[in-house]
Amino acid sequence: MKLSDLARLLEGEVRGDGSLEVVRVSPVDEGRPGSIAFLYDAKYRSRLASCRASVVAVGSDGDAAAAQAVVPAVLVVKDPRVAYARIAALLHPKAVEAPGIHPTAAVDPSATVDPTAHVGAFVAIGPGSSIGARAVIHPHVVIYRDVSVGEDTTLHAGVSVREGCRIGCRVTIHNNAVIGADGFGFAKDASGRYEKIPQFGVVEIGDDVEIGALSAVDRASMDVTRIGRGTKVDNLVQIGHGVEIGDDSIVCAQVGIAGSTTIGSRVILAGQVGVADHVTIGDDVIASAQSGLHGEIPPKARLAGSPAYDARTWLKVSSAIKQLPDLLKRVRLLEARNPGTGPSDTEGEKK
Amino acid sequence: MKLSDLARLLEGEVRGDGSLEVVRVSPVDEGRPGSIAFLYDAKYRSRLASCRASVVAVGSDGDAAAAQAVVPAVLVVKDPRVAYARIAALLHPKAVEAPGIHPTAAVDPSATVDPTAHVGAFVAIGPGSSIGARAVIHPHVVIYRDVSVGEDTTLHAGVSVREGCRIGCRVTIHNNAVIGADGFGFAKDASGRYEKIPQFGVVEIGDDVEIGALSAVDRASMDVTRIGRGTKVDNLVQIGHGVEIGDDSIVCAQVGIAGSTTIGSRVILAGQVGVADHVTIGDDVIASAQSGLHGEIPPKARLAGSPAYDARTWLKVSSAIKQLPDLLKRVRLLEARNPGTGPSDTEGEKK
Amino acid sequence: MKLSDLARLLEGEVRGDGSLEVVRVSPVDEGRPGSIAFLYDAKYRSRLASCRASVVAVGSDGDAAAAQAVVPAVLVVKDPRVAYARIAALLHPKAVEAPGIHPTAAVDPSATVDPTAHVGAFVAIGPGSSIGARAVIHPHVVIYRDVSVGEDTTLHAGVSVREGCRIGCRVTIHNNAVIGADGFGFAKDASGRYEKIPQFGVVEIGDDVEIGALSAVDRASMDVTRIGRGTKVDNLVQIGHGVEIGDDSIVCAQVGIAGSTTIGSRVILAGQVGVADHVTIGDDVIASAQSGLHGEIPPKARLAGSPAYDARTWLKVSSAIKQLPDLLKRVRLLEARNPGTGPSDTEGEKK
Repeated sequence: MKLSDLARLLEGEVRGDGSLEVVRVSPVDEGRPGSIAFLYDAKYRSRLASCRASVVAVGSDGDAAAAQAVVPAVLVVKDPRVAYARIAALLHPKAVEAPGIHPTAAVDPSATVDPTAHVGAFVAIGPGSSIGARAVIHPHVVIYRDVSVGEDTTLHAGVSVREGCRIGCRVTIHNNAVIGADGFGFAKDASGRYEKIPQFGVVEIGDDVEIGALSAVDRASMDVTRIGRGTKVDNLVQIGHGVEIGDDSIVCAQVGIAGSTTIGSRVILAGQVGVADHVTIGDDVIASAQSGLHGEIPPKARLAGSPAYDARTWLKVSSAIKQLPDLLKRVRLLEARNPGTGPSDTEGEKK
Repeated sequence: MKLSDLARLLEGEVRGDGSLEVVRVSPVDEGRPGSIAFLYDAKYRSRLASCRASVVAVGSDGDAAAAQAVVPAVLVVKDPRVAYARIAALLHPKAVEAPGIHPTAAVDPSATVDPTAHVGAFVAIGPGSSIGARAVIHPHVVIYRDVSVGEDTTLHAGVSVREGCRIGCRVTIHNNAVIGADGFGFAKDASGRYEKIPQFGVVEIGDDVEIGALSAVDRASMDVTRIGRGTKVDNLVQIGHGVEIGDDSIVCAQVGIAGSTTIGSRVILAGQVGVADHVTIGDDVIASAQSGLHGEIPPKARLAGSPAYDARTWLKVSSAIKQLPDLLKRVRLLEARNPGTGPSDTEGEKK
Repeated sequence: MKLSDLARLLEGEVRGDGSLEVVRVSPVDEGRPGSIAFLYDAKYRSRLASCRASVVAVGSDGDAAAAQAVVPAVLVVKDPRVAYARIAALLHPKAVEAPGIHPTAAVDPSATVDPTAHVGAFVAIGPGSSIGARAVIHPHVVIYRDVSVGEDTTLHAGVSVREGCRIGCRVTIHNNAVIGADGFGFAKDASGRYEKIPQFGVVEIGDDVEIGALSAVDRASMDVTRIGRGTKVDNLVQIGHGVEIGDDSIVCAQVGIAGSTTIGSRVILAGQVGVADHVTIGDDVIASAQSGLHGEIPPKARLAGSPAYDARTWLKVSSAIKQLPDLLKRVRLLEARNPGTGPSDTEGEKK
């Protein structure tokens, strides 16, 4: 593809030779003739010196000047990260899977598969389920009964979608993820044993959602576990029964969200965050990695720690905490200078 | 089903019209004619006003009076949560899978499958394995050699049960869980490389256990990893080699239990708890979410934090910790008023 | 096997009757005639009294004398843990899977499978992929297109290997692990929605690596996610796109490593550790369970805590922290004795 054509598609501006051929995307510090690299993060600037690509896409005049000193041509765009996403999709398209049902697939006669969909080897599709146009169902996917899979959705090998769940359009679910396993609900009987609370609700996954490998989204006990449009979920995430997540949120790897929690839109939960049950998280909240969320969290809050609190305070505490052993000694010294103070003298304050 | 019949089954008392038909279970704040809702948690009381169900099941006279003001009939039971479990099972029964072996299943000639069991599409059952009466083996389950699966047990799609493992009766294992993968054991040789320690033990899962989706229970290195009767394990849980868990314990999502740890009965490990190896946890212990357990933990302990300590102390610490940066300043001010104190003056105390 | 033959193989020394037959490995506190137990950890010494094995393997003269008082013969070796690994492999060999392709497997005509490899039931192998000599591909493995699997490698049931990934020789991957799912990369467009950044890199797994059940190793966005020779990864681990791990490292269960992080050789990450993105971890680093790593970590560092810092300091802080609520009271008392100090008097220090 000609650089000038790429520039037109992306409403970018070429500085240098627009007739250069661009055939692949590369990291800033690798590249070779025919490569285009993207300066979408300030931390890549220092690698520019070793860049051997033909083109670097940048977002500012300053970066453009720096890049022009190193490579034959520069593409100035509004957002180099978006440009990266779009140009990579153009130059490195996914393998196309041919429409049709593999002869080994076991599709129930009452299921409907759009003739433009691809159904791979050993796929099992249960009674009453439907697969939309251009969907790609990779080998070894298991779809239970009464499931609907929307148009242009891709389910990777080993995904299970349990009975009654609804998957939207343009959704991608990665390998071995499980949609609609039973929520974790039991009632302790008089003898101290647990009786199972039947989980007869479903999961509903909105359009343009991505779910990572080995993630679980549990079915609601009675109604619906819901993941909103455009939300992206990474690998090994647990989403409990009855959880609702809004649109365009980001749930990083190994996050766990307990049952009946409601999460707003544009929320970011970093890796290994835990969210308790029956929590409410407002829109635009950001929680740092490994934090533990509970209670009612207002919109735009920035949280960290377990249990979580204001992220800026947490940063100060995290820095101060290393001084705690010394602080104990310093207070002991102060107490030695102040007769009538010391651990034993605070007993009266205790209940 | 008639409300009066439900009341008889549950030894409950009807207040209002016992001839009402009850056809489905619903949340307290949704419902419609024919629904029964359950007031099993105080936090649902505030939702009673918007209840549109025909019946609400309650556990106290106070709740009964409140519910009667809103809905046509009330069912008073000893434990509304247990009633919910039982009535939901009656009104929302699981789909029944017909007995028999799907023609695509690959069952080794030396395996035995009870004629009342259901074996789904593409199931693989290895030499010497046995499947008990009324067991339901969903599509794409893989059972290695010499495995036994008890009566009335359900294995969901994608479950792997490795060689020699024993699964009890009335067990449910959710999708893509792995029973009996190798424990994580290696010996560092003289050159610094790791040699694998063969893991030739097995896993034994007691009756009435439930294992969540995508959870792993590793085989013991030599003997048995054991999960006791009635214990419930949520999704994405890791149970290491040689772990023993007693009866009626609860292991929430994303908990990790390292090798050779022994856990008692009626223990509750909340979400994302980590337990070190060779730990002993007594009966009736409760560990809060994200805590880290080690050492010997006596029965009935309540623990939180990482490393974990008494949960009540942890609560106070979690509240006090936000004041730590200020506390440092306050101590500095005190030191300024007390000549001969301060960080440099505590040096002598250090080793 | 005769004890004297075992001794010769392991360059060990028999004390007692070398003609004893040894047929199985057992724990120190179980055993029976014909068993060999291993005293490879000091904590097993106290169990020696109840040992009923024929032989105990030990690493020191002291342990030899103690064992000789209890069992008929002792095997003195340099490293009892390595001896355990080797003798267990001899006495408890893995079931051998016969070469050949199961008639139900779906192998693309353009894929190549070495005639000495075993390919189980319902395995799917995509176009252009190759399976090396003596590899064992268990039932229900899915290998996408252009994958290479090395000699003597074992892939357990339910493993997915995505397009283009390369697996070395003598690798073991446990059930339902996923190699090469898309990395988690999105670009926020002007409207606040996320566009997918195509993930067209691959995963490369070195020789002698072991990957646990239900672990995910994501493909790089452009180049290679790499796991070095001999590194062992436990269950439910997340390894993000573009991560590089050196040789002979240990990654325990439920660890999460975010994208573009580089980890050295002989590193040990204990259970549930989280590593942020773009982190650099030097050789021989050890991180305690549940710690949270970020930044640049020099070789040989010992870290704990979240965020992580020096492990020895962390131990002292963990012990001191329980005194924090009392410390607040003690400082309050000191302030009462020192007019002009107290929370309000430090306001001036704040920005």
